[in-house]
Amino acid sequence: MRIMVLGGDGYLGWPTAMYFSARGHEVAVVDNMIKRFWEQEVGVEPLIPVATLQHRIRRWREVTGKAIKLYVHDIATNPRALYKSFEDFLPEAIIHYAEQPSAPFSMVDREKCVSTQVNNVAGTLNVLFALRHIVPDAHIIKLGTMGEYGTPNIDIEEGWLDITHNGRKDRLLYPKKPGSFYHLSKVHDSHNLEFACRIWGCRVTDLNQGVVYGIDTDETRLDPEFNTSFHYDAVFGTVLNRFIVQAIHGLPLSVYGKGGQTRGFLNVRDTLACVELATLAPAAQGEFRVFNQFTEQFSVLDLAKRVERVAKSRGHVAKIENVPNPRVELEDHYYNAKHSALPALGLKPHLLTDEVVAHMMSVVEASQRRIDPDIVAPTVKWKQR
Amino acid sequence: MRIMVLGGDGYLGWPTAMYFSARGHEVAVVDNMIKRFWEQEVGVEPLIPVATLQHRIRRWREVTGKAIKLYVHDIATNPRALYKSFEDFLPEAIIHYAEQPSAPFSMVDREKCVSTQVNNVAGTLNVLFALRHIVPDAHIIKLGTMGEYGTPNIDIEEGWLDITHNGRKDRLLYPKKPGSFYHLSKVHDSHNLEFACRIWGCRVTDLNQGVVYGIDTDETRLDPEFNTSFHYDAVFGTVLNRFIVQAIHGLPLSVYGKGGQTRGFLNVRDTLACVELATLAPAAQGEFRVFNQFTEQFSVLDLAKRVERVAKSRGHVAKIENVPNPRVELEDHYYNAKHSALPALGLKPHLLTDEVVAHMMSVVEASQRRIDPDIVAPTVKWKQR
Repeated sequence: MRIMVLGGDGYLGWPTAMYFSARGHEVAVVDNMIKRFWEQEVGVEPLIPVATLQHRIRRWREVTGKAIKLYVHDIATNPRALYKSFEDFLPEAIIHYAEQPSAPFSMVDREKCVSTQVNNVAGTLNVLFALRHIVPDAHIIKLGTMGEYGTPNIDIEEGWLDITHNGRKDRLLYPKKPGSFYHLSKVHDSHNLEFACRIWGCRVTDLNQGVVYGIDTDETRLDPEFNTSFHYDAVFGTVLNRFIVQAIHGLPLSVYGKGGQTRGFLNVRDTLACVELATLAPAAQGEFRVFNQFTEQFSVLDLAKRVERVAKSRGHVAKIENVPNPRVELEDHYYNAKHSALPALGLKPHLLTDEVVAHMMSVVEASQRRIDPDIVAPTVKWKQR
Repeated sequence: MRIMVLGGDGYLGWPTAMYFSARGHEVAVVDNMIKRFWEQEVGVEPLIPVATLQHRIRRWREVTGKAIKLYVHDIATNPRALYKSFEDFLPEAIIHYAEQPSAPFSMVDREKCVSTQVNNVAGTLNVLFALRHIVPDAHIIKLGTMGEYGTPNIDIEEGWLDITHNGRKDRLLYPKKPGSFYHLSKVHDSHNLEFACRIWGCRVTDLNQGVVYGIDTDETRLDPEFNTSFHYDAVFGTVLNRFIVQAIHGLPLSVYGKGGQTRGFLNVRDTLACVELATLAPAAQGEFRVFNQFTEQFSVLDLAKRVERVAKSRGHVAKIENVPNPRVELEDHYYNAKHSALPALGLKPHLLTDEVVAHMMSVVEASQRRIDPDIVAPTVKWKQR
């Protein structure tokens, strides 16, 4: 299949491109490398240096003999280049990661809020128009987030909700209560995508993904230069990655508030498996299909305790510390999110065991001297003026 | 009260500014006049010429002795000017009409879709940030649209829905199914505004307004130069205005498809009354309050028949014609939208009587020679490539 990965330079985009290439698909990646710039703006770097995308693609060809095509342009501001790349590659599946991915980044100030929403919303709209003009039967696999739902007091369904109200019924988009301007941008995308399916007959799978953890995949392990970006900082890092780095560096594991915040989590390997399952069993013409993409629910405190335990078994001094919550969110809430569609397609989850945590620790330990302890504490407050 | 009207050059903005000024409030208007440019882009004009906003404000002072303050800047792209105008005027209420207001305009092509969403979403975000920094207790009265809801098969509530699901309850934003990229931009705004209330404690009233009809208000009648823009074209015109112009010009009353599309409607005078009621009884700190702002429901065919009847009684040859629907929408559907909050605050509706239609006709008849019959037929198709 001809698969185009938008955001191919990123934490998930690069492993996805390698994954499909390794399995014999024709793969193209699109990126404008702006994430590297955003990292510099807030002064953070991934734990392990990531070579340029151009370099990794050359190296991939040397190691595997397989080509990955590269288009460097901004999908949000350069629609002409986007259209041309679609005309050139004629994708059958478009895996869309090309968005500003951080909640704290979107909450820094007005400029970062507006640029996050404009970048994400306009980019996705441009993809929809390019698809409609050039490859109307292609399938969009769009990365959304479980954070679109927030923490409602009712069960979270997969994108749609059957509602009975005053004796009448309808199936409507699940009402969203997102927790940051970033999460809101994904809600806006979901609405725009559903409309395109309804009006133009597009095929879309919206993957409402949980918090991803993990460092490597089968492909990243093929060569030292294939690693993907592992962020542990307070802006682009996810919580498990951060706790592991804190434990290894001898920093307290900083739990925001009470730590009762419960979320869905998944291993980066399962991201790839889920995206593959969605790609190989595409949405029907006109279908806006939503999958909740995670494998397990944990509270933040659960995770901290697990990291503390595994870290201690490896000789680290690990200690949990409750810090004031920089976000505005419930710290004690109901959370029961359905996630049966991807298992029904065949997903076999990699669950979070102590062995998985220990393996992540071993990778981080090998790069321990590169940890910058000054980028771990939260700097962005949801309520700051 | 110090009331700032964003979008003060527009069909509703200008009458709103005069309305509050006439009642002794301190009024400022903000506009960048871009609507005039958009009209030229698609080649349409209001039926009766509208003087520059600067001229009308000078004339308003001559006629009434009252000052209206003017700020000319783009709220979506010039946040610095927006902040400065807030610092200068220190609004207590901000009535926000400053958005691209046409569904067909947003469906013309990629550029107009993206610019509509970026303009509307970024403008509203900038207003939120300016408010938070400068006048955090001010109340935003935001014009949304009943079109955010679409035509669900269940009763439409006012913004929020009490949901019972698997034995648990929550009150969540009413799920939306909007019918154009314009309507989607308003859905995005609503989500962003609700978040700002929840996180920052803002006060917001989101007015989900029906289709407005009508030409004049008490204030527009004070002087020939106070009229507001009356659009009857297929891009910026609303349906009743268009039918009246068609009847008077001897054009068939063009009903899109079967005409069973049912919507909420209101007189422009009731728009002013509703905005005043919302302004004088502000939302509480942290409250995202939604009012469905319309007074009656009609199907498009109902309206056409009424115009036909009144037009014939005035000697016009009026004839209804079903034309292919340029939009993608249900033409036969359930529609029961609640609208009790504004009447509870004291709204006394101006209902659509034959006399009201006849009065509108008399105004249009007086400008009959200015009708351009070539701008009435729809040119924008929802499905076009």
